[in-house]
Amino acid sequence: MTTIPPNNDSADFTEPTIHTEPIFHGKVISLQVDTVKLPDGKTATREIVRHPGAAAVIALLDGKLLVVEQYRKPMDKLQVEIPAGKLDGDEDPMEAARRELEEETGYRAKSLRKLCNFYTSPGFADEELFVYFTEELEPGQMKLDDEEFLNVSAITLEEALELIKEKRISDAKTILAVYAWRLYLLTGEL
Amino acid sequence: MTTIPPNNDSADFTEPTIHTEPIFHGKVISLQVDTVKLPDGKTATREIVRHPGAAAVIALLDGKLLVVEQYRKPMDKLQVEIPAGKLDGDEDPMEAARRELEEETGYRAKSLRKLCNFYTSPGFADEELFVYFTEELEPGQMKLDDEEFLNVSAITLEEALELIKEKRISDAKTILAVYAWRLYLLTGEL
Repeated sequence: MTTIPPNNDSADFTEPTIHTEPIFHGKVISLQVDTVKLPDGKTATREIVRHPGAAAVIALLDGKLLVVEQYRKPMDKLQVEIPAGKLDGDEDPMEAARRELEEETGYRAKSLRKLCNFYTSPGFADEELFVYFTEELEPGQMKLDDEEFLNVSAITLEEALELIKEKRISDAKTILAVYAWRLYLLTGEL
Repeated sequence: MTTIPPNNDSADFTEPTIHTEPIFHGKVISLQVDTVKLPDGKTATREIVRHPGAAAVIALLDGKLLVVEQYRKPMDKLQVEIPAGKLDGDEDPMEAARRELEEETGYRAKSLRKLCNFYTSPGFADEELFVYFTEELEPGQMKLDDEEFLNVSAITLEEALELIKEKRISDAKTILAVYAWRLYLLTGEL
């Protein structure tokens, strides 16, 4: 990398924890507030959400992307997203991806390929999302959780781009999936 | 969209709030637990993080991407990311993007173009991130917050792809930025 001055190349930016205050422990997330020591010796607080991580699948069925439409309470609206779900305990992300795909869409992946993994909100959460890709699908068994209600669809790239414009697709993983799909169609590579 | 049976086309998936339990109100985020009514009449709880939203910039300086390396407490590691920061109150996202770019990198955008906006973690948070693009930069004034310590760099696409492999780039907005940049170089469009 070309570092641009002013730089702090030799600086240690880590923020050692002085104290951790547990705030909440829920079904999905936990919240804690850490008091940390800054590089300049001062202290600061960091609000940190702990999340078990999640897995998602870019699944192409006859060249169309499998998506689910579901209600998202934090935004109070329906969202069209690629199939995804959180990891169960120590579950392997690829197994979680395989399971969520089949449970939510009724299609089973004959093979899965890792595309990428990323932190969704590095400023306040440790949630890591693992994204997989498959074009090899076979009929499986849909099996929704008790609290899960959704519609399954298969969409073309043009429909995906239109759904982004309409804000019916508006989450990081699905927009990233559509970008990756476009790159795949343009270059043949993921 | 081609809806795949079984479908619930006529179903109302919304989850009306029965009760909201405020848990925490912090500097950056708030946490509440909502009890909601599900489509089948049962109740469930939803853990919801409220966040003011954030803005980020894909800024190309002589064909290289401006990035900042900073420590992220939730993951306890250094991360290379595009410049970004949370919205101050009712701040316009484009103004926030302009401000964060100059404060973190010392470069001012002569123009900014909206690329996309997305929810980072639709399952548990309402954080929305607005992403802008610029290739028109001029020297400005770096001005870090009291609690902000970072290095600024300009990287090539090849370096960005290598940093993704090394997991030094591993957050949603920056990976999405690199995908968008690749698409821009391939197609001339954003």
